Amino acid sequence: MSNPVLVEVLRGGLIESRHRGAVAVVDADGATVFAVGDVAKRVFPRSAVKPLQALPLVESGAAERYALGDEELALACASHSGEPAHVEVVLRMLSKAGLDASALACGTHWPSSQAAAFALARAGGSPSALHNNCSGKHAGFLCVACAIGVDHPGYWRPEHAVQRGVRAVLEDLTGVALSDDCRAVDGCSVPTWAIPLANLARAFARFGSGHGLERERARAAALLRTACARKPWHVAGTGRFCTEIMRLLGPRALVKTGAEGVFCAALPQPGLGIAVKCDDGAGRAAEAITAALIARLLPLEDADRTILASFARPILRNWNGIEVGSLEVSEAIAAASLR
Amino acid sequence: MSNPVLVEVLRGGLIESRHRGAVAVVDADGATVFAVGDVAKRVFPRSAVKPLQALPLVESGAAERYALGDEELALACASHSGEPAHVEVVLRMLSKAGLDASALACGTHWPSSQAAAFALARAGGSPSALHNNCSGKHAGFLCVACAIGVDHPGYWRPEHAVQRGVRAVLEDLTGVALSDDCRAVDGCSVPTWAIPLANLARAFARFGSGHGLERERARAAALLRTACARKPWHVAGTGRFCTEIMRLLGPRALVKTGAEGVFCAALPQPGLGIAVKCDDGAGRAAEAITAALIARLLPLEDADRTILASFARPILRNWNGIEVGSLEVSEAIAAASLR
Repeated sequence: MSNPVLVEVLRGGLIESRHRGAVAVVDADGATVFAVGDVAKRVFPRSAVKPLQALPLVESGAAERYALGDEELALACASHSGEPAHVEVVLRMLSKAGLDASALACGTHWPSSQAAAFALARAGGSPSALHNNCSGKHAGFLCVACAIGVDHPGYWRPEHAVQRGVRAVLEDLTGVALSDDCRAVDGCSVPTWAIPLANLARAFARFGSGHGLERERARAAALLRTACARKPWHVAGTGRFCTEIMRLLGPRALVKTGAEGVFCAALPQPGLGIAVKCDDGAGRAAEAITAALIARLLPLEDADRTILASFARPILRNWNGIEVGSLEVSEAIAAASLR
Repeated sequence: MSNPVLVEVLRGGLIESRHRGAVAVVDADGATVFAVGDVAKRVFPRSAVKPLQALPLVESGAAERYALGDEELALACASHSGEPAHVEVVLRMLSKAGLDASALACGTHWPSSQAAAFALARAGGSPSALHNNCSGKHAGFLCVACAIGVDHPGYWRPEHAVQRGVRAVLEDLTGVALSDDCRAVDGCSVPTWAIPLANLARAFARFGSGHGLERERARAAALLRTACARKPWHVAGTGRFCTEIMRLLGPRALVKTGAEGVFCAALPQPGLGIAVKCDDGAGRAAEAITAALIARLLPLEDADRTILASFARPILRNWNGIEVGSLEVSEAIAAASLR
């Protein structure tokens, strides 16, 4: 069974490329509100579950012990662009736990922000693990290890207490047992667990509403949501989709990108979770689908709706700025609506 | 009708993403040797037809008049990485026609070579149109305009003599009439024409063998093929797929990438042309498919076959260098073979 085409890429009025995928919109009880494609299939959520992976940071008491504020909590949920202020916050988190950048095991890459990368190069610098888009999450893991009093080296391994805690949280929110045969290694070396798309959506419905969670877990989720809503720049970066959508919608939506065409979102007000997976791993399509879904599922004023629509139908321009095409979300997504 | 899955992206033994597409392998008479998916569908070849777009550079007499050597002819066929020696050759081409970088209408972007981009930034530089991956093709167009004595400004417009010449060449090689309703604007602003995949493959079979072409056109194709075989670095750049494959195979294969998951190749010896289009625009999949097809269609020694196999099954590593997965070309491609 093949998933339907969810996004068409047009050039000069003709279809140049097409992206298939699946979408699940689920409430906190696990009831499916809207589904397209195979939502029972397990997908690797990759970075899309960083907000869930950050729950132990609050629940363990580490956030309180190290007095982590909104910026730090947002960074723990982030796939950041490696801009200077991102790096500063990560360093601050590490420093509060008595560590430095040498403790990070996420690996090194240049800032994904082109401006930040070239500024670093111009200054004669080179990237470190701090610039890795996952360094905030890793700093959070390290804070947990220090707060609960376990050795921090190896914090990224599946058998380490930190990752066992993350696994338990994911099992609770998704309602899925995560066995070793659905575990793989993420880009930053921590485990990534293949989870059915509908259960990922359910996890975000619970994360967004607190419904079905124990009191402490619901409180931790609310704290992380609030941090991301207040500091959306720290969750991604300048000009990035997640940042712009959360800047627009504030506490009305938490959206988080993952590699290989995954997007997750929590809509606290209607109490819904969204999970998107493009079969081919295309982030451009997952973004457009997510924007289109939010526009269908949230009550919005016209101005907000217009801005969301521009994210749901990105215009493609060439190197001379000439409009050459667009991404068009399919009718299958247009059918999404609140019951 | 949906095209079949041609490449699976594995992570930890599970399928994370999948790429659908179509493949045509055609001889110079237009007979299909191997086909998967819808090969009658029109696709935008984008940069994959640069070697064909360069034919007027030779046929017009411009290459001879300006004494263009292998490096310059290879650059005219290139999607180059913007490395310093690429830029030098483009400047030399322009200079021979009495022009400079200001004549280029391809637009500006940073070198696609990360090393070249950061070196440029470290030196306090910023990119120009010379660094655009299409600047060699554009320099070739400008040489044609000057050689045939037409005004060069606007050389990128469909109605300009240069682009009318390119269109006629494409119609001859593909055997397809190119009407305005299948024209769009490419990333560098020149026209790109939607052409059935099988006809693109036929064009490369003719380009590679000379079969079915007028004498002068066949001679021009041979000159360009030889230039690319001798100077494969100039067709792409350091570490790039096209460069490495042509360095390995020399005159036995001309391979050329295009944006949005297109790949074309000419295999002069069996007299075949290959055209690949991934539905979703994925270049990673198009590369693996192309390598797998060449390995099936060319007689190869074991050492060459082993190297090709590594391009047909790329290993995915994360930021710590840990092997996290691989790309696997499907059985559908394994069926390709010479009759």
